[in-house]
Amino acid sequence: MKDTFFNYIHELQDTITKTLEEIDGKARFREDLWDRPEGGGGRTRVIENGEVFEKGGVNISGVHGKLPESMQAYFGVKDADFFACGLSLVLHPTNPMVPTVHANWRYFEMYDQQGQIVDQWFGGGQDLTPYYLFEEDAVHFHQICKTVCDKHNPNFYTTYKKRCDDYFYNAHRQEGRGIGGLFFDYCKQTGDMRMQDWYNFVTDVGNHFLDAYVPIVEKRKNLTYTQAQRDWQEIRRGRYVEFNLVHDKGTLFGLKTNGRIESILMSLPPHVQWVYDHHPEKGSEEAKLLDVLKHPKDWV
Amino acid sequence: MKDTFFNYIHELQDTITKTLEEIDGKARFREDLWDRPEGGGGRTRVIENGEVFEKGGVNISGVHGKLPESMQAYFGVKDADFFACGLSLVLHPTNPMVPTVHANWRYFEMYDQQGQIVDQWFGGGQDLTPYYLFEEDAVHFHQICKTVCDKHNPNFYTTYKKRCDDYFYNAHRQEGRGIGGLFFDYCKQTGDMRMQDWYNFVTDVGNHFLDAYVPIVEKRKNLTYTQAQRDWQEIRRGRYVEFNLVHDKGTLFGLKTNGRIESILMSLPPHVQWVYDHHPEKGSEEAKLLDVLKHPKDWV
Repeated sequence: MKDTFFNYIHELQDTITKTLEEIDGKARFREDLWDRPEGGGGRTRVIENGEVFEKGGVNISGVHGKLPESMQAYFGVKDADFFACGLSLVLHPTNPMVPTVHANWRYFEMYDQQGQIVDQWFGGGQDLTPYYLFEEDAVHFHQICKTVCDKHNPNFYTTYKKRCDDYFYNAHRQEGRGIGGLFFDYCKQTGDMRMQDWYNFVTDVGNHFLDAYVPIVEKRKNLTYTQAQRDWQEIRRGRYVEFNLVHDKGTLFGLKTNGRIESILMSLPPHVQWVYDHHPEKGSEEAKLLDVLKHPKDWV
Repeated sequence: MKDTFFNYIHELQDTITKTLEEIDGKARFREDLWDRPEGGGGRTRVIENGEVFEKGGVNISGVHGKLPESMQAYFGVKDADFFACGLSLVLHPTNPMVPTVHANWRYFEMYDQQGQIVDQWFGGGQDLTPYYLFEEDAVHFHQICKTVCDKHNPNFYTTYKKRCDDYFYNAHRQEGRGIGGLFFDYCKQTGDMRMQDWYNFVTDVGNHFLDAYVPIVEKRKNLTYTQAQRDWQEIRRGRYVEFNLVHDKGTLFGLKTNGRIESILMSLPPHVQWVYDHHPEKGSEEAKLLDVLKHPKDWV
């Protein structure tokens, strides 16, 4: 399973970066290979100053070894070994009419001292962060999420849509980071779902990422925008930074356990603003977005 | 003591904001009064888009009531009441040749159920974050810190200078946020120092804040700079954001206990950049700064 999924994310990284380069037309991904001293490493691919993508990363990593102490406490185990691999991506488009997107698909194994697997699970998801709300885009993104989920279990979409809204929440602002999508974790073997079923589900979501995001990019990338709209995008990107640095477990875990900093923080947007006590005008497009972030909607 | 210090920070806020407005010459501080539902409130003063100061806040607050649960655990007490007041300031100048400065002076009291003081202490400090290193500015700032400290105790400067270097440290970057200054906390009654002595020390530091910072601003505010130098400033401001959102106890405490978000996050810079894997050229002015941030110096 471990090798199969590790191969899968290599291929998915190739597919996604190739497609994004075609869409961008100007910038290419820069590739950095890195090693983790304690075992494993990664292949980071970052695009910057493109025609469509101002900054983005599509990274894979596979790390293994002794489970770090902080994670031992977290999982309530002692002296375990682990293997973890995944693909993480964040794309920050230049045009404020094109939403930021984040996705992640990952697999984790834990071993006893004899090297036997004692636990294993999948996790991941994908979510959209618009700066201007085109309802049809939100519906499209969620519809793709739902269609994939429904093939595997009729309850998955509702469950994982809610988890996404709950997780990507800036509690200190009382608003969502974006308009959600899917978020799942600790997908373990049960009566209904063997690990192979979870593999099929997670890779099915991964295989439909481009279907969910690319049509939105194509539709919005050439729309004109004003400096005021660009400022609003940069202010909202500040909220993205706040979520990732204050609340996101993955980011904080990486920062506190000596992960490769530049691969973790590639998620941060290129140009960001903080304006004191900023509030959009009542009835404006900006206010309409905020309203949806404060009150998550059912899109499909 | 509580009323005396609370009055003191009101007056200090007036003095500091008046002087900064004179230096800026263009922008004025906007004042927001706010109430804390559980008791107390604050007077936030923010300046934006000035001639010298791109963004800054000089805030006072005085809050009281039942000690929040998260703080009870932190201090290892139960069912205590508290009073806390302080002045916090952060100034982000437009010109990358002018350093960012942060300062804070605060006082805390804890009470038992009969309303008797069971614990009380002062805390605070001030520290400088340059984007370009003028060694004479660093020496000036630290010399003022040292001169004030030496009046009260020959060991204070060495002790609190080191605490400042240790505290304002971006562990995940393995570099200091800035070039330090003073940081002290839990300044409690001892054989040598009664509370009145601590009051004298803390207010003495507060009274010399402008002496430490203003001459540096005056000297550098009219220097010319390039777009590349401005970009470097914005990238370094990203590190400031990382420290405040990932490591700063005061910020995190505020965010997690329902503080007034806009007053807490006024510390974040106005325009910020994150560039993937950015490294200054060897031997450049930018590299010289990084070297000092990685290896804190004794300035006086």
